[in-house]
Amino acid sequence: MASITICRMSQQLTSVSNPRVKHLVGLRRRRQRDQSGLMLVEGYEELSLALEAGVVPVTLYYCPELVRQESDLATVAEVTALGSEVVQVSDRVFEKVAYRESPDGWLAVVHTVPTDLAALRVGENPLTLVCESVEKPGNLGAMLRTADAVGVDAVVAARPITDWGNPNIVRASKGTVFSVPVAAADSADVLAWARERSMCVVAATPDTDTVFTDVDFTGPTVIAVGSEKHGLTDEFLTAADVRVRIPMFGRANSLNVATSAAIILYEALRQRTDHRR
Amino acid sequence: MASITICRMSQQLTSVSNPRVKHLVGLRRRRQRDQSGLMLVEGYEELSLALEAGVVPVTLYYCPELVRQESDLATVAEVTALGSEVVQVSDRVFEKVAYRESPDGWLAVVHTVPTDLAALRVGENPLTLVCESVEKPGNLGAMLRTADAVGVDAVVAARPITDWGNPNIVRASKGTVFSVPVAAADSADVLAWARERSMCVVAATPDTDTVFTDVDFTGPTVIAVGSEKHGLTDEFLTAADVRVRIPMFGRANSLNVATSAAIILYEALRQRTDHRR
Repeated sequence: MASITICRMSQQLTSVSNPRVKHLVGLRRRRQRDQSGLMLVEGYEELSLALEAGVVPVTLYYCPELVRQESDLATVAEVTALGSEVVQVSDRVFEKVAYRESPDGWLAVVHTVPTDLAALRVGENPLTLVCESVEKPGNLGAMLRTADAVGVDAVVAARPITDWGNPNIVRASKGTVFSVPVAAADSADVLAWARERSMCVVAATPDTDTVFTDVDFTGPTVIAVGSEKHGLTDEFLTAADVRVRIPMFGRANSLNVATSAAIILYEALRQRTDHRR
Repeated sequence: MASITICRMSQQLTSVSNPRVKHLVGLRRRRQRDQSGLMLVEGYEELSLALEAGVVPVTLYYCPELVRQESDLATVAEVTALGSEVVQVSDRVFEKVAYRESPDGWLAVVHTVPTDLAALRVGENPLTLVCESVEKPGNLGAMLRTADAVGVDAVVAARPITDWGNPNIVRASKGTVFSVPVAAADSADVLAWARERSMCVVAATPDTDTVFTDVDFTGPTVIAVGSEKHGLTDEFLTAADVRVRIPMFGRANSLNVATSAAIILYEALRQRTDHRR
């Protein structure tokens, strides 16, 4: 086993025409992620959070010339000890396989995160976030980061536009896509799932008089936000138990969807914390 | 006057070697904005908000081939009526002067927004946001957007890294940089300004036991957030009247700075609204 590990660690990738380069670049596309069941994690911070969350990389690629702090290289031994394949990469190859503008020399291939709604486990008094047809990976990533901070039970993509393996979600989430339970399903399935668990579905929309701070978030709750352009679908709004708006007094007509989710999630947390006192 | 207007409207720009192209591209750089007192507004949505806020463009450049909705072209007459110079641009030139990836055919040169702290007028019971050394224009723009929605009195950049004329701030703010009063100054000046107006300086930091929801925001208030990497400076933290943290229960160690500002601003709004009831 030790000899295998050493053998694996000695692997080097210096040619941009190596088929692995094509494989890594291909994983930026959803189709290839769906077919292979694999996704990418780029960046030391994101990789660290994935490892903390128990992710075992299939392969770790690293480029010593690009690594920002020498102490970070301890991660190579750590990942090797997990039994993962570890490949050292030249800076020329790394620039090719990296999707970031200023890569920091860390890229891992990992299994895609489980997204089966039926398999999602939530606590006894769950607080969950549902994002219906949110388009921008940056917004989904930002919502995961906030959801991680709030300690929500899960983030569910309803009627999803993108998959949770999108590299820009991983990046914007700072790796929290590996620590927050996620799922993806049609809106009807998400609504049925919420109903079966007696969760109160609170839908964010500008078209209501109810202000979000006037709603009780202390019981089992789904907070639902919709797409950047169109908000929640009529299907979702009709099925919701309550619709809430965030007061706005400015000239612009909307808040960013991830900002809206953060504001409502923290109001829910405030109420649930006060409730426990 | 009518003939001048017609003459102005008939101007066309079809050569990428025209000195105006260089001038427009140059305004992406801070130095040229500082020297000329001019800045760029790109995009129909952002331009509309600037016009609503009373901005009179120096020059409006538009490209009919790229304009998304024909009804938007009414803006050309509207801006002409303001006495602004209006220049029609070929799509080839527009692609050159646009800083966005998918330009929508609208670009205006306007005077930089006033940023003199001493000239800033706030209400009797002001709520203001101070961003100290925030680096990313996207975060500053996002904070302006939220500040607009909350209806804050002003957003002040302390110890600024970038200027309010940065095109990426304009974009991320969706044009609210023109509707929200802004200023920029050294941290010591910002603190003195707050003290003179008897504002309670509430500093966001992870290093305190006080949770933000336990603080009174109903009086004259400054909410202060610091840079993405280092947070608020010791100078600011020491001078603050109270330090608050946002509770976090996740694996990642921080919220995005614009998200943090939004969460605290909406708690302040909640308290101030309840207070008025």
